Amino acid sequence: MTPPERQESLDPTDWDDMRSLGHRMVDDAIAYLRSVRERPAWQAVPEETRAILSAPAPQTPGGAAAAYRDFVQNVLPYPTGNVHPRFWGWYMGNGTVLGALAEFLAAVMNSNLGGGSHAANLVEEQVVNWMKDIIGLPRTSSGLLVSGGSMANFVGLAVARNAKAGFDVRELGLHAASGLLTVYTSNEVHSSVQKGIELLGMGKRSLRKIPVTPGYAIDLAALESAIGADRQSGCRPICVVGNAGSINTGAIDDLAGLADICKRHGLWLHIDGAIGAVAMLAPSIRPLLAGIERADSVGLDLHKWMHMPFEAGCILVRDEEAHRRTFSLTPEYLARETRGLAAGAPWFSDYGLQLSRQFRALKVWMSIKEHGLARFGRMIERNVEQAHHFGRLVQDAPDLELMAPIGLDIVCFRFNPGGVADAALNAVNKEILMRLHEDGIAVPSYTTLNGRYCLRIAIANHRSTTEDFDLLAREVRRIGRELTR
Amino acid sequence: MTPPERQESLDPTDWDDMRSLGHRMVDDAIAYLRSVRERPAWQAVPEETRAILSAPAPQTPGGAAAAYRDFVQNVLPYPTGNVHPRFWGWYMGNGTVLGALAEFLAAVMNSNLGGGSHAANLVEEQVVNWMKDIIGLPRTSSGLLVSGGSMANFVGLAVARNAKAGFDVRELGLHAASGLLTVYTSNEVHSSVQKGIELLGMGKRSLRKIPVTPGYAIDLAALESAIGADRQSGCRPICVVGNAGSINTGAIDDLAGLADICKRHGLWLHIDGAIGAVAMLAPSIRPLLAGIERADSVGLDLHKWMHMPFEAGCILVRDEEAHRRTFSLTPEYLARETRGLAAGAPWFSDYGLQLSRQFRALKVWMSIKEHGLARFGRMIERNVEQAHHFGRLVQDAPDLELMAPIGLDIVCFRFNPGGVADAALNAVNKEILMRLHEDGIAVPSYTTLNGRYCLRIAIANHRSTTEDFDLLAREVRRIGRELTR
Repeated sequence: MTPPERQESLDPTDWDDMRSLGHRMVDDAIAYLRSVRERPAWQAVPEETRAILSAPAPQTPGGAAAAYRDFVQNVLPYPTGNVHPRFWGWYMGNGTVLGALAEFLAAVMNSNLGGGSHAANLVEEQVVNWMKDIIGLPRTSSGLLVSGGSMANFVGLAVARNAKAGFDVRELGLHAASGLLTVYTSNEVHSSVQKGIELLGMGKRSLRKIPVTPGYAIDLAALESAIGADRQSGCRPICVVGNAGSINTGAIDDLAGLADICKRHGLWLHIDGAIGAVAMLAPSIRPLLAGIERADSVGLDLHKWMHMPFEAGCILVRDEEAHRRTFSLTPEYLARETRGLAAGAPWFSDYGLQLSRQFRALKVWMSIKEHGLARFGRMIERNVEQAHHFGRLVQDAPDLELMAPIGLDIVCFRFNPGGVADAALNAVNKEILMRLHEDGIAVPSYTTLNGRYCLRIAIANHRSTTEDFDLLAREVRRIGRELTR
Repeated sequence: MTPPERQESLDPTDWDDMRSLGHRMVDDAIAYLRSVRERPAWQAVPEETRAILSAPAPQTPGGAAAAYRDFVQNVLPYPTGNVHPRFWGWYMGNGTVLGALAEFLAAVMNSNLGGGSHAANLVEEQVVNWMKDIIGLPRTSSGLLVSGGSMANFVGLAVARNAKAGFDVRELGLHAASGLLTVYTSNEVHSSVQKGIELLGMGKRSLRKIPVTPGYAIDLAALESAIGADRQSGCRPICVVGNAGSINTGAIDDLAGLADICKRHGLWLHIDGAIGAVAMLAPSIRPLLAGIERADSVGLDLHKWMHMPFEAGCILVRDEEAHRRTFSLTPEYLARETRGLAAGAPWFSDYGLQLSRQFRALKVWMSIKEHGLARFGRMIERNVEQAHHFGRLVQDAPDLELMAPIGLDIVCFRFNPGGVADAALNAVNKEILMRLHEDGIAVPSYTTLNGRYCLRIAIANHRSTTEDFDLLAREVRRIGRELTR
């Protein structure tokens, strides 16, 4: 009961009750994550739960405990599944317990990292500096944490567009371009690059998708001749987007080769490092990324292979001024001061689309302090080893087929007992994937390579063990045999 | 100690230790928020703390408890301050305890709301439907939660651009426009609208800032004549952005009038409702927003007047197909299924820039269940009453001056003892603001209206009481008198 003299607010009417509820949540979360291996990798939301999750909003208070009960009953049992040791779909991380607790602490402080003089901004600046050090960009670079790889690519491309267009894009817009501004990347590029270019008003026709080598890396000769041809035909090449870990197969472009080409032609080099850039932490992988330190901008995704809870992307830009010139816009009510809360630098809103920004740096900061960078490097190396272990299982099995070179931690494969046409194999492998999901065995996803349906595992998973991959190979073969006998 | 047979992972080596740490965090957080009134509204980060917050990243593990200790000592004492009952700067919410706990739970599940068949997507769909109901848009509209008002405006403008350009902007880019695509709004528009237009490649010159009435709402006659003049000169008007609560003074445009004009001229009506749209929950304010339900798109910010922890914005779009056509891009590796995890609808990545998306819907869902919509409405009404209470204090004081009509919960005022020129008053009021911050008394921010420096309070605060405003008036007068005697 609210005492009548106390005014209504959104604070708890009973703080001790709320504390107990918080303890219960922690206990439940620990139990949930500790036992995640015992549950299915995925399970469908039952129809009756779907009905509950479409009710109208309540007008009157139900209280915190009831809201939590509702969550435990109707939401918690049906996660995406990427917390599970056998989730290898698309490309996600697991998250960690401390990462989740850090999200709580960030929301308790509820600091706004748009700018101003307070500790959270300093933490983000520190974390961004750590990322520069990892990638090898100078500390004079700028950067900020963003929602993920899509936004990181968007920011990098926006700066590239404005820096290289040759006219004032902010003022005049792309109507003012005399020739098409063109951007180059391989046809293994992540969809977010195309999406970014479309949103930036450049048009999909600005994006040149260059063929790849048999290893799925961009063909440098084809790239350079495309640049030359475009120049000849009146286009204005502005940017190359390199892949540091492609989404389909984990292929890494020859980044040093791209840097040379960009230097020769005066182009902006943006690296999409959402998958592989953090592998700079792994001594055995770092050489494959040589050249990344020469990029003009690099996008990273810390909620992938560094296992931060969603969302934690990062964009780094070598030319701080070009970065700020693209995004800084300071109206009267946001004018900076030299004293008080409105003082302080940097203002992260000068470097990205957002003005109000959450304290996503805290989970990164606490997690790196918890584990140290070297452990993250070891986790990454182990996933790559697991990919090759699984690759060997595939190659040793008479009815499994490797469909592409193993790039980083990504394996594309299929069930193929021999003597079955591709069209039928596509159907069988699709059915295998459905069964793996529906039976909660494991969560691969799929892709298509040269018209062939491939099962695909992306092993950004700190909970996976060797046995998990043995089980996957066994189950794919079992289901495949059932479907084809 | 890690048992040797246990493989290294990012999970706790001792789950019970981590549970205890989680309990301590909950205890500390409860104590922190319960006692927030006893601390200064803001305090500067000491130099020695700044030094600590610029150390390089550790290579070796420090453990979770040490990372938390570091946070408690060096970060937690120096928040932005918007958790405080006397924080009224810019425009932020307080957050809530359950909102913060929900962020923890969301990160424990670590679901990815880009798409797929799992409960979190259903929760976001439910929450977005609630928002449609609140605003009065049909359930057939589309929408998604975004980082905040800037992204909400960006999404709305992107759809407007693509829907109204008259050619295939995604394919061709804005190079292909025959005339400038023009967007109209008042000169009280939030900076994010200009930023969005610049990023979308339309150019700042596309944005027509229309003069305002004495009440700071857009001048409808001036708007309509600007549209006509642009048409005559070969531009292509596409969109009007209406303000449902302007950032400077909380002014609300005549939204029904804007809807009429848009209908007459075939223009897209986007409403920037970051500040005021959720005031639809307050019966006494709702009539001021009449017409919002006729918009083509509405941006909301739930981390403002609904006090969700950062980040929680929302964009609603009446024409689902136009929305999807702007953002949907489905490569092979994301192709949808009818079974398994890759089934399910909607895929929120079809409606925004992001592909991986965090479970920000959970805090909204749990908070609305905790409090019910009616309480949020009462909180909003009380803040508006507090604004008018403070306005009366200003008007009753011989040395305070109201600088603009009170719009919603925003009051612009200054210390003015009479007989002092504007330039000197600007300096005095700026110094008053610095002292209020530095002494931790309260956090107003400021703006400039007609060249005059104004103190400005935006009362999106569920913890503020009448006495807090009495104190502000008293302290502003005290400091002002000290500075001018």
